[in-house]
Amino acid sequence: GSCRKKMKSPADDPETYARLLETFKKHGIRYFFYIGGNDSMDTVLKLSQYAAENDYEMRVVGVPKTIDNDLVGTDHTPGFGSAAKYVAITMKEILRDVSVYTTPAVTIVEIMGRDAGWLTAAASLAKPDLIYLPETAFDPEEFLMAIENVQKNHPAVLVAVSEGIRFADGRYVGEGLGGRKIDAFGHVALSGAGKVLEDLVKERIGCKVRSIELNLPQRCAAHIASATDISESVGVGKAAVMAAINGKTGVMMTINRVDDADYSVYYDSENIEGIANQVKHVPRDFINAEGNYVTEACIGYIAPLICGEIFPEFEDGMPKHIVI
Amino acid sequence: GSCRKKMKSPADDPETYARLLETFKKHGIRYFFYIGGNDSMDTVLKLSQYAAENDYEMRVVGVPKTIDNDLVGTDHTPGFGSAAKYVAITMKEILRDVSVYTTPAVTIVEIMGRDAGWLTAAASLAKPDLIYLPETAFDPEEFLMAIENVQKNHPAVLVAVSEGIRFADGRYVGEGLGGRKIDAFGHVALSGAGKVLEDLVKERIGCKVRSIELNLPQRCAAHIASATDISESVGVGKAAVMAAINGKTGVMMTINRVDDADYSVYYDSENIEGIANQVKHVPRDFINAEGNYVTEACIGYIAPLICGEIFPEFEDGMPKHIVI
Repeated sequence: GSCRKKMKSPADDPETYARLLETFKKHGIRYFFYIGGNDSMDTVLKLSQYAAENDYEMRVVGVPKTIDNDLVGTDHTPGFGSAAKYVAITMKEILRDVSVYTTPAVTIVEIMGRDAGWLTAAASLAKPDLIYLPETAFDPEEFLMAIENVQKNHPAVLVAVSEGIRFADGRYVGEGLGGRKIDAFGHVALSGAGKVLEDLVKERIGCKVRSIELNLPQRCAAHIASATDISESVGVGKAAVMAAINGKTGVMMTINRVDDADYSVYYDSENIEGIANQVKHVPRDFINAEGNYVTEACIGYIAPLICGEIFPEFEDGMPKHIVI
Repeated sequence: GSCRKKMKSPADDPETYARLLETFKKHGIRYFFYIGGNDSMDTVLKLSQYAAENDYEMRVVGVPKTIDNDLVGTDHTPGFGSAAKYVAITMKEILRDVSVYTTPAVTIVEIMGRDAGWLTAAASLAKPDLIYLPETAFDPEEFLMAIENVQKNHPAVLVAVSEGIRFADGRYVGEGLGGRKIDAFGHVALSGAGKVLEDLVKERIGCKVRSIELNLPQRCAAHIASATDISESVGVGKAAVMAAINGKTGVMMTINRVDDADYSVYYDSENIEGIANQVKHVPRDFINAEGNYVTEACIGYIAPLICGEIFPEFEDGMPKHIVI
C-alpha cells in the first residue's frame, strides 16, 4: 500500500541534507519521529547517520506503520490489524453473497501486497476456498485443478489472491499469461492478477466468474478498525517518545508478542541497521504444502490482531474525518 | 444488483404454475409474501392474477427490497439506504486517501446501477468532484474538460460513475470507446465504465489515474448499515402482514415520505399492475444542467435514508452471520 519514494543518500543529494540540518538547528529540533514502512525506515537510517556524522545531537526514532506488515524486527505493524480486519470482514460478506446461488461460479478477490502476502493471508479468517500469496510460485494448471476440486463440494468457489502473485519464472501473474492484453488505444494493459485469473477460468472452466479488486478501501476504510490495532498504535507511539527521552536514536520501535493464545504485547526498540530495506515475508510454514492456503499457525498469528471494534464518530449518517 | 430471472407467464410455463397451485393447496397456503425488486414484483403480478383466475383465494403481497432503488410507486426501497450509506462512506474514505497527494491524479469509482443512477447519486454525500449517472448521455470530451477544470483547483480529482453510463448513441461506456479491448485469449473484453474512462484519461490527460469498482461489497457490506433503512425494512414487513390480513392482494407495499426536512414515513400499498416492469429513474431535476453532478434536491432526498448506524454482533473480531 506504500506510495512514498525512498530518500536519496547524503552523497547523492547533499543539498537536501544540508537544508534539513539547517532547519533542525534553526528550530532546535532534537527529536525526530518518522512514521511509516520500509522506505520510511530507510530515511530513519540515513537521517540518524547523517546527524551523527555532522555532530548534531538528534534522536531519530522510527515508528512502524504499514498495512503491508512487511517490516522485520517487529511482530507486526500498526495499520495491519485494521486493514486485515477490513479484508476478513469483506471476504466473509462476499462469501455470504456468492453462497446463495446454485449455479457454479468462481469469485476471485485481489488483495493488496506486492511482495508480502500478509493482507491476503488475513482473508483466511473468512474461510474462503483458496488463498494464493506471492511467497509461493503460482501454477495456473494447479490453480484450475484446485478450483475443480472445490466445485465437487459446492458451486460457489471463493478465491483470495495477492496482487503480487508470480509465476515460477518470476513474472507477475498480473502481467498476463503470455498473451498480452491490449487496451482501446493499442497499449499493453496490465490488468491485475484477479482479472487475468478471471479470464483464465472463463476460458478453461467456462463457468460464471467474477474478479473483485478490493483496491484503496483496504487501506482507508477507517469506518471499521481493529481495537487491538488502534490501542497498539497509541502504545507504540508513547513508547517511541519514552525511548527518545531515554536517549535512543537510530532505532525502530517494535511490537513484541508474548504469545498467541493469551495475546499481549510489549514495546521495545531495535537498531535500524538490521531493519531498513528488508522485507518480512509470510514464512513457508504459514503456507500449506500445495501453496493454496495458509496454515493454522498463520491464522493463529493474525486472529488476535483484528480483535475488537473501533467505530468513528458519525454525524448525519457519515463518519467524521479530521482534515488538516 | 439484481440477479433473479423473470418468471415465465402461465401461458409459457403452465406446468410450473400448476405445480405451484397444487403446493399452495396441499399446504393450505393462503398468504404469499414476495420480497425483491422489479422481477419479483412481476412475479407478484403473475401469481396474484393466476390465483384469481383459478379461483384460489390467496393474498399475494410484494414487499420491496432492492439496493437499486428503482421501483416505482414507493418513495424508496429497503436495502437502498444501507447500500447508499456504504457507497457514501467508502467514497469519503477514498477522498481522504487520494487528497493527501500533491501530484495530479484522477480516481474514478464505478458504482452499481445498470439502468438507474440512485446508488451513484449517493456518492454525492461524500462530495466528490464529478458524478455521472445513466440518466444523461455521457460525452467523453465534456468529461475530459470537466476533469481539467477541477484540476485548476486541486490535484486530486475524484469521480463517481455508474456502471450503466451510456454514450448519446445508447452504447454502454463499459463497451469501450470504439476501439475494442482484447483479452489474453483474443476475445473482446468488456471491462466496465471505470476502466474505459481510466484508459481515456491516461491517454488524453496523461496524469496518474486509477479506477476502482466498488463491486459486490456495495450490496453485501452488512457490517455497516443505515439504522433508518433497517427500521423501515422491519416496518414495511409488518405493514405487509397487516395489509394481507386486511384482505389486500396483488399489491406492493410502499414507503411514503412525509417530508425531507423533518423526515418520517408511513406505509401503504399500491396495485401491482402500475408498478411491475417499470424502472424509476433519477429525475432530470435531480441532475445538474451539465449532467456531471446531482442537485441539492437529490442530496436532500438521499441524506435522510442513510441516517443512523447499525453494526452487527461481532465475535473474535468478525461479524456473526446467520447461515440457514
